[in-house]
Amino acid sequence: MTQSADTALTIWLTGLSSAGKSTIARSVCEHLRAQSHRVEWLDGDLIRQRLSLGLGYNRHDRDENIRRIGFVAELLVCNGVIVVVSAISPYRATRDEMRALLPNFLEVYVNAPLALCEERDHKDIYRRARAGELEHVTGIDDAYEPPLSAEVECRTGQETVEQSVAKVLAAVERKLGSASI
Amino acid sequence: MTQSADTALTIWLTGLSSAGKSTIARSVCEHLRAQSHRVEWLDGDLIRQRLSLGLGYNRHDRDENIRRIGFVAELLVCNGVIVVVSAISPYRATRDEMRALLPNFLEVYVNAPLALCEERDHKDIYRRARAGELEHVTGIDDAYEPPLSAEVECRTGQETVEQSVAKVLAAVERKLGSASI
Repeated sequence: MTQSADTALTIWLTGLSSAGKSTIARSVCEHLRAQSHRVEWLDGDLIRQRLSLGLGYNRHDRDENIRRIGFVAELLVCNGVIVVVSAISPYRATRDEMRALLPNFLEVYVNAPLALCEERDHKDIYRRARAGELEHVTGIDDAYEPPLSAEVECRTGQETVEQSVAKVLAAVERKLGSASI
Repeated sequence: MTQSADTALTIWLTGLSSAGKSTIARSVCEHLRAQSHRVEWLDGDLIRQRLSLGLGYNRHDRDENIRRIGFVAELLVCNGVIVVVSAISPYRATRDEMRALLPNFLEVYVNAPLALCEERDHKDIYRRARAGELEHVTGIDDAYEPPLSAEVECRTGQETVEQSVAKVLAAVERKLGSASI
C-alpha cells in the first residue's frame, strides 16, 4: 500500500465498553501510519471530552454525540485522512446514518460477551451499574444493537489482538483496493 | 503558490455579527482552492448547528464553542488542510488560546463600526436585541474585545470585499513563505 493523499476511508469500531475497541483502534492506526497513510483516531471518550461536554447518555444525546463524530470524520475523510472511530455507538440506525454519510465506510463489530466485558471493566462502569450507582450503561440497562452485516467482526474473547487487527487491515486492503479514490 | 499537502495554516476571522466575516471567508476559500490548496471553512453558525447545539451565549458557553472549533481545526491543520474560521470569538484570551494551539495562526480582525453592523443586520439580531427580545448579543450587551495585534485588519466599512480579501491573501503568502511546513 502506498501513500495517497486522496485515500478516503472510515473505519468504525462499535461494541460494548471494554470489548476492545480502543486497543484494536490504536494498533490499526499504528499500522496504517507505518504505511504512510494520514490517519486520525476519533475515540468516543476523547470526543465526549472535547466536543460533547454536557451531553448525557440517553438515546437523543448518544445520537447527537455520534453525529458530532460523524461531522468531524466527514471533514477529515473528505481531505484524504483515514479516520478510525472507536465508540460504543449502540444504535443500528445511527450507525447506518454514518454509513450513508461517510465515504468507504468499514464497520467493525468488536464483539465480546457482556460477561467478559464486565470482567475487564476498564472504566469501572459495569461494577458501578450493578451497584446502582450508574444508569444508562450499554449492555446493562441500555440497549446495544449488534450490527447485522458488519464488514469485520472481531471476537476479542476468542482471538488475540493481533488476529483482530489483521482482520481489520485485510478489510482495509480490500476496501482501498476496490475504492474509487 | 503550489500545492502542498503539508501546508499548515489557520486563518481566524473575528469580529461583530454582520461585520463581513463570512463574506471574506468564502472568497478567501475560493481563492485558496483555486490555488490547489486543501481548504476547510469552519463557520461559527455551522459549528453551532453541528457541534454545539445546547450551548448558549454566556462566556462559558461561547468559550466552549470556540474550543470545539479549535479542536476540529487542529485535526484538520495537522493533516495539511488550511482552515478558515469565521466566528465572532469575542474574547481576546480565548483567541490567544487558539493562537497557542493552532500552527501558523493568522488572526484577521474584521472591523466594522457597530452602527454599520446594525444597519446590515443580516441575521436580525441587533433589531431583536434593541427590542429587548434577545440577550447576550455581542456589541450590545455582551463585550467584544478587539484584537491588539491581529496580522490583518479589514475595515469593511471603508474598503471593498476584494480589497479585504486581497489583504488576507497577501498575509497568507507571507505566512506560507516564511512557514516551516
